[in-house]
Amino acid sequence: MAAARGARGPKVVALGGGHGLYASLSALRLLTDNITAIVTVADDGGSSGRLRQEFGVLPPGDLRMALSALCDDSEWGQTWRDVLQHRFTSDGPLNGHALGNLLIVALWEQLGGSVPALEWVGQLLEIRGRVLPMSSMPLKIEADVTENGICETVRGQVDVAVTQGHVDHVRLLPENPPAQPEAIEAVHDAEWVILGPGSWYTSIIPHLLVPELHQALCETSAKRVLALNLRSEKETRGLSVAEHIRSFNDHAPELRLDAIIIDPGVIDDRAEIERAAQACGAQLLARNVRMNDGSARHDPLRFAAAYRDAFEQI
Amino acid sequence: MAAARGARGPKVVALGGGHGLYASLSALRLLTDNITAIVTVADDGGSSGRLRQEFGVLPPGDLRMALSALCDDSEWGQTWRDVLQHRFTSDGPLNGHALGNLLIVALWEQLGGSVPALEWVGQLLEIRGRVLPMSSMPLKIEADVTENGICETVRGQVDVAVTQGHVDHVRLLPENPPAQPEAIEAVHDAEWVILGPGSWYTSIIPHLLVPELHQALCETSAKRVLALNLRSEKETRGLSVAEHIRSFNDHAPELRLDAIIIDPGVIDDRAEIERAAQACGAQLLARNVRMNDGSARHDPLRFAAAYRDAFEQI
Repeated sequence: MAAARGARGPKVVALGGGHGLYASLSALRLLTDNITAIVTVADDGGSSGRLRQEFGVLPPGDLRMALSALCDDSEWGQTWRDVLQHRFTSDGPLNGHALGNLLIVALWEQLGGSVPALEWVGQLLEIRGRVLPMSSMPLKIEADVTENGICETVRGQVDVAVTQGHVDHVRLLPENPPAQPEAIEAVHDAEWVILGPGSWYTSIIPHLLVPELHQALCETSAKRVLALNLRSEKETRGLSVAEHIRSFNDHAPELRLDAIIIDPGVIDDRAEIERAAQACGAQLLARNVRMNDGSARHDPLRFAAAYRDAFEQI
Repeated sequence: MAAARGARGPKVVALGGGHGLYASLSALRLLTDNITAIVTVADDGGSSGRLRQEFGVLPPGDLRMALSALCDDSEWGQTWRDVLQHRFTSDGPLNGHALGNLLIVALWEQLGGSVPALEWVGQLLEIRGRVLPMSSMPLKIEADVTENGICETVRGQVDVAVTQGHVDHVRLLPENPPAQPEAIEAVHDAEWVILGPGSWYTSIIPHLLVPELHQALCETSAKRVLALNLRSEKETRGLSVAEHIRSFNDHAPELRLDAIIIDPGVIDDRAEIERAAQACGAQLLARNVRMNDGSARHDPLRFAAAYRDAFEQI
């Protein structure tokens, strides 16, 4: 593994899922080769959902995204990245499957254990760092959602992510799942732990709902950074920035943060945000991390600069 | 490409398909990095057949086999080989698909042209040499078969390969397909051209049915070797060894051979085989190339030694 080769840079663990974790890893790999990505395993839609159903495996999609983000900068690495992310287009049964998902499932079938197989995928692609599932068990997400004054239960990551209502509470099914032991070890061993950005209730909060992982995040001597989003996702529509931070804190009141990275463009009520950050023990680090193209996407270089400021100044 | 890096060894082109070409390439790569595999594209069964149907592409299976054979000897290369060859097992739509076939189709979808995409697959897997389709067009095989005195037409590579009858004649559909230009160039540029081993009518003869390829094989200044099988396939059941050679000669009377590699264990009538070989201009090279396990498989080291003898002595 790249991480084992006396790699450059601080030991960083990044937790999340999907595009948010992809953005974070794309930035972090510019600063360190010592990266462990810990990835949610509750996706039940699209290619991942179909592969869960067909093979009874962990959903590979978020793992694939993280592996892609850690492909190196050479033409070879970037071509692998594009190939992993490639989705088939047809009128047949392969339509919508991402090649990288199929590669991961092939290694799982061939080697059995999900972690050794992921280590091998990492080696085959010569990625920088490693990618681990947060739990050894495929999970589902369930949320209590209030819409027009009516509270109902929404099941499935996809449905929770696009709900029109207000998410009051989110649960994993089965509840209190086992953590992936290597993930716990990585959190304890880290110098920096990064949470976010990403879909709040479906990519970030789920890590706090795995009891051993929650405990490891509280106990580690690593410094902890929360990276906020560049816009509200559907699932958190209507939440102010301070409310995002407070909802995180509500799910892990004893988890202390050292820094919160925020793009100045999303600051709605600075005093309120400062108060929410202080309640978690965190210093607010306002940095322009947005791309120039007007999109709500993180620019890898700017985001890397923000992380470096955190690593140097906190 | 590996072949472009001032590679070691003579320029060899190996034509065939399936397990026979795999065996030949596994031996040849021990002698040279300068290998071009030219592969039949008429498979219409199994994973390849389904992918042809779903995506309208060349059948990737024989191309995948050739790429696998050219993976290097490191643990990394051999793991890639196993992953390419991995077939999914499920009750669902992915059952039976080989991961390598899906990787090739993904690159075809992403890059368009089949040859540049195959070059990229080769680079991504760091194979030694390169792999080309014999034609730019997906083909079908059709054979006139006599069984119990009745002549009938059998369609499709799978059905021809397992026919119980005697194959009188084999055709490609469409007839006279265009050759892949890079394959023609490779044949002209070669020092050695190897045909076989492999399924006679479905992996070897088809190369002679592509007019430009047939012509290039006749015109090249390369020396030409035919490698015979270790047993009769179903499609050639009842043919003597000399009849194998004569059926090859019948399909390309003006194609001169320099050597025919034969395992002593398959020699049925030495004088008759010598006569058939001489009729093609070929010297008979009898070498033990079989595995020790009693199977009808080529041992890569023994097969490589036989090829080296040909390269040195012919």
